[in-house]
Amino acid sequence: MSPFLPSAIEQRAAETRRRIETVAEALFRRIGYQKTTVADIARDLGMSPANIYRFYPTKSAINEAIAASMLKGVADEMEAIASAPLPAPERLRAVLHHLFDSDMRLFIHERCMHDMVQAAMTEHWNVIERFIVAVEAVFARLLADGIAEGVFAPTDTAAGAEIINTATLVWTHPVLLADCLNHGKTEPALKARLDAMVDFLIRGFRA
Amino acid sequence: MSPFLPSAIEQRAAETRRRIETVAEALFRRIGYQKTTVADIARDLGMSPANIYRFYPTKSAINEAIAASMLKGVADEMEAIASAPLPAPERLRAVLHHLFDSDMRLFIHERCMHDMVQAAMTEHWNVIERFIVAVEAVFARLLADGIAEGVFAPTDTAAGAEIINTATLVWTHPVLLADCLNHGKTEPALKARLDAMVDFLIRGFRA
Repeated sequence: MSPFLPSAIEQRAAETRRRIETVAEALFRRIGYQKTTVADIARDLGMSPANIYRFYPTKSAINEAIAASMLKGVADEMEAIASAPLPAPERLRAVLHHLFDSDMRLFIHERCMHDMVQAAMTEHWNVIERFIVAVEAVFARLLADGIAEGVFAPTDTAAGAEIINTATLVWTHPVLLADCLNHGKTEPALKARLDAMVDFLIRGFRA
Repeated sequence: MSPFLPSAIEQRAAETRRRIETVAEALFRRIGYQKTTVADIARDLGMSPANIYRFYPTKSAINEAIAASMLKGVADEMEAIASAPLPAPERLRAVLHHLFDSDMRLFIHERCMHDMVQAAMTEHWNVIERFIVAVEAVFARLLADGIAEGVFAPTDTAAGAEIINTATLVWTHPVLLADCLNHGKTEPALKARLDAMVDFLIRGFRA
């Protein structure tokens, strides 16, 4: 058998992992990460807890897998938006709004997600870090495209991507976002302020 | 008696408030805000707790007064730096570095300050908000000076000040700052990145 094709056993294991993650994510969203137990997840799957532990040593490991796949989804969507046939500055604006909208949906609108996100940020910084790398790669690529289009001035695209990421943290960092909303900022007001920041960033990178 | 001059009673009350704040701040710094009790503060002052409660209804109210005066001190120093006989962009850079250095000193280097800051941010947002207003006023003033000097392009200085504040939160927000340092960033690396952000901001506002 080819070592490059997953065996039937590996395929079934991957399928079981996916089912565990799907059911766990639904429970985290419904009753919260802290209140969900591995026994709850097992019951909803018609499985024994021992069987879950064969795939994930802890509830935290399940959360890590869910967080990684959620964030990969957002990064993939940003990558797709960054590939649209539009001028680079417009794509940069669309990508940043998509990141903001995704964060609002994942971290704010679903109140039960809060403790799952909190746990992921404390326990699985590697997952967050990988996401930041992916997001900054999208920014760097858009800066490179803009330089090629002649709309952005030549610049160190990695350093520029870090500038964009840092300057927009208020709209993307779950803790800051929750803070803003707790202190009376509304979602439309935040979107308008994001637009003003994007204007400033685009002007700053202009040729 | 003139209604505009504080009476001797008022002067003595203000003096007592200052003594309570000084002793409380020393205790907060030494053993932490959560672990300090009003009884500890009273003992160090040679006062009864009941006497403290005549001036401050709660320990939280003492913390509010300390936080307000600490942050007013930082804002006053920024204002002084912003008044130096230097070009506006240089003053903007110096002001931002001073804010970063102050935050490092207050929030990071003194580990015991952490829970005091946390409590102030949760319980006395009004104090934080007043500080943000003062900081943005310094930024707006420097933008106006730069426009008058002809180095910055005419712009809405209040909106520009908000851009500067938002773009530099990583270096000024206690939670973000602690996060950065927890994830392996060093203080010199953070200062270098702040300089890169200031370069970008100055370029963005240039005439």
